[in-house]
Amino acid sequence: MTPPSSVLLTDLYQLTMLQAYVEHGMEAPAVFEFFVRKLPPQRAFLMTAGLDQALDFLETLRFAEWELDWLARSGRCSRSFVDYLAGLRFAGEVHAMPEGTICFPHEPLLRVTAPLPQAQLMETRLINLLHFQTMIASKAARLVLLAKGKPLIDFGLRRAHGEEAGLLAARASYLAGFAGSATVLAGARFGVPLYGTMAHSFIQAHEDEAAAFEHFAETHPGNVVLLLDTYDTEAAASKVVALAARLRHKGLTIAGVRLDSGDLADHARKVRHILDEGGLTETKIIVSGNIDESALRRLVESGAPIDTYAVGTHVTTSSDAPYLDCAYKLQEYAGRPRRKRSEGKATWPGRKQVYRQYGSDGRMASDLVTVADDPQEGEALLQPVMRAGRRLAPPGPCDAIRAKASADLARLPEPLRELRDGATYPVRISQALQDLAKAVDERR
Amino acid sequence: MTPPSSVLLTDLYQLTMLQAYVEHGMEAPAVFEFFVRKLPPQRAFLMTAGLDQALDFLETLRFAEWELDWLARSGRCSRSFVDYLAGLRFAGEVHAMPEGTICFPHEPLLRVTAPLPQAQLMETRLINLLHFQTMIASKAARLVLLAKGKPLIDFGLRRAHGEEAGLLAARASYLAGFAGSATVLAGARFGVPLYGTMAHSFIQAHEDEAAAFEHFAETHPGNVVLLLDTYDTEAAASKVVALAARLRHKGLTIAGVRLDSGDLADHARKVRHILDEGGLTETKIIVSGNIDESALRRLVESGAPIDTYAVGTHVTTSSDAPYLDCAYKLQEYAGRPRRKRSEGKATWPGRKQVYRQYGSDGRMASDLVTVADDPQEGEALLQPVMRAGRRLAPPGPCDAIRAKASADLARLPEPLRELRDGATYPVRISQALQDLAKAVDERR
Repeated sequence: MTPPSSVLLTDLYQLTMLQAYVEHGMEAPAVFEFFVRKLPPQRAFLMTAGLDQALDFLETLRFAEWELDWLARSGRCSRSFVDYLAGLRFAGEVHAMPEGTICFPHEPLLRVTAPLPQAQLMETRLINLLHFQTMIASKAARLVLLAKGKPLIDFGLRRAHGEEAGLLAARASYLAGFAGSATVLAGARFGVPLYGTMAHSFIQAHEDEAAAFEHFAETHPGNVVLLLDTYDTEAAASKVVALAARLRHKGLTIAGVRLDSGDLADHARKVRHILDEGGLTETKIIVSGNIDESALRRLVESGAPIDTYAVGTHVTTSSDAPYLDCAYKLQEYAGRPRRKRSEGKATWPGRKQVYRQYGSDGRMASDLVTVADDPQEGEALLQPVMRAGRRLAPPGPCDAIRAKASADLARLPEPLRELRDGATYPVRISQALQDLAKAVDERR
Repeated sequence: MTPPSSVLLTDLYQLTMLQAYVEHGMEAPAVFEFFVRKLPPQRAFLMTAGLDQALDFLETLRFAEWELDWLARSGRCSRSFVDYLAGLRFAGEVHAMPEGTICFPHEPLLRVTAPLPQAQLMETRLINLLHFQTMIASKAARLVLLAKGKPLIDFGLRRAHGEEAGLLAARASYLAGFAGSATVLAGARFGVPLYGTMAHSFIQAHEDEAAAFEHFAETHPGNVVLLLDTYDTEAAASKVVALAARLRHKGLTIAGVRLDSGDLADHARKVRHILDEGGLTETKIIVSGNIDESALRRLVESGAPIDTYAVGTHVTTSSDAPYLDCAYKLQEYAGRPRRKRSEGKATWPGRKQVYRQYGSDGRMASDLVTVADDPQEGEALLQPVMRAGRRLAPPGPCDAIRAKASADLARLPEPLRELRDGATYPVRISQALQDLAKAVDERR
């Protein structure tokens, strides 16, 4: 339903490098890995997401006629190279951590093995897809842990960075444990449960707030959620009670009210009291408005009678850490491990695997990053997901990913689950991998 | 070339409100305005961008068959409402500041006048489009001011938040004064000049760095830009000098080198020295790697021999301020001004205009926000751009917008041009507007 992205959504250097590879016959197998170099100061763990979109991209990639024409006309590509691009498909293999996996720096989240031009060309868009959803799922997971079981809803489309960001943030936050989103397209595309209330404009367009409430209830009798803070929150709550009395004769109830400004805990208490006094003990209170981790923690700890939290901008932009220091790096070419040694950006060479050890309490105890052919105790996190350019299994349903994410969050060590300042998790680099890095350095 | 976005890329409440409006015959003219409530702490001014995409959206919006089917099946919309949506088009009028205009909080950047359902439905995507490009252009403008005439290039696609963010960040940063982008699709779609070098993987895939340089030069004789920091930056610079000597016989030159890690100013000085000694005085030095305002200011002030700056993640995510506190609010319905009074989020009612006064030095002196029918001295910033759902003029070329942006930046007061801490700009609210707000409050 959403058309594939243009293959020209890439960095120019992918095309210039590709032409040089092709002209010099450098089409031997290459191994690239995607990993995070370093956590942002505000994160102690990450959660993988975006693999489904990444595999879609690899499976369907091809150059359209207009793209080939444009490249030919641009003067940047030889005719023979444009012909090569016309036939280019991704026919490699991919290993990856399943979506919803807790992960850490230095751990490959995804490994591509393919002829060098194929593996290289994918770099920009693969990073673009994996980086974004992993960042959002990681942010959303923190909010889920803080909400202590209370439902969270994504309201952030309007300030997400464009269309795809809004759509995929709804997906990634749902995978991480949000209850749903206001973004309709996320419901249509991914089956994300949809939630919505009304805007202040709906109230303002009516001369009278009570009339606005009544109009809405008449149109949506099955799902009446009313916004209270356009003029005076508690006065509006009293109007809700009066309306409920009138609606009761028609068998209608008021499902919920939303508070969007002021001291949310204080308003929630006052509104709960007014609703309860009016007999509306079943009407839920939803709050929204600039909610991030610190506000959520405060509201939850306050014990305020809030049933649902709507989180907007802070989750769809990952506002406190709007990017991850991540990379997709060549680790092996033509059977030989490779390594970049740039200052402050050196990488571990070769194809790798991550083993996760659990303690006797079932919690995660430590991870070990080692070379791929060095079997270890524990759970191997990277699994084959694509061979010869085809997925090994159809995309899994969101529910299965949500279950995986929830299980991983439950197994986090307690200091990480509680988002304690300074909490860290041990990720060890195996002796075999350290030896390989040394051997690669000495070879040069 | 890029297909239109799905109209379901909206918040659920737009559809539920719309159904209530339609069922209750609330289709009188409404006026909504898009504005920024408050600047992020790291910004003293903003620059508008995204109008072209916003007008595209309004002009082409319609519900596709699959979207109508999905809504009907979802059980959320009555059949008659789905039929209404099938015929829905935007037929209203739009006033807006041209792209590339410097602007401030409380100033409407765009005003929509249309029957209430049409104006309401547009909210989510209009904000999504205007917010993102305005945020990016505002960030990019700061970097342009700090670069003091040195070219800046956008390298940030990989960590932009998805596809559209990468593409439109390339556009918005170019409008604000960047020299170009690495994003190929931005070249194809918007004519943004393209720049690119090579990745570390290109060097690593070769057994020998010098061979990698030579292969690249053979394939792209007209545009040889070589990456120096894969192993040892200065050693690589010496290899470039040796290669240049061999290429000279073929009439080839080395256009540039890129440094991507370590102390960029120090490496640039050493590399410049090696290149100059080797006779490569015309070879440019391009730097990249985690460049934001503070790094750029430091590098420019250091006097290091750097010719071009590539800025990645920090510009495409607006990393220090990844969202703007902005809104699209109902200001008038059925001829009567409206106002939201929520705590901390009250708005100025009615349709408005912004007048900009200039000083005798040609610099911006102050802005006045007033009601639309209250002509004042100075430049009226909001202009009619769409009537009856049709643009009044075809989309302007990027060059014209760049000229406008550059002129506006030149007219900024000096403290804002220098990004001095605490610099502010006077935006006044007219007496007429204050009186109107009072009258609206008293009416209730």
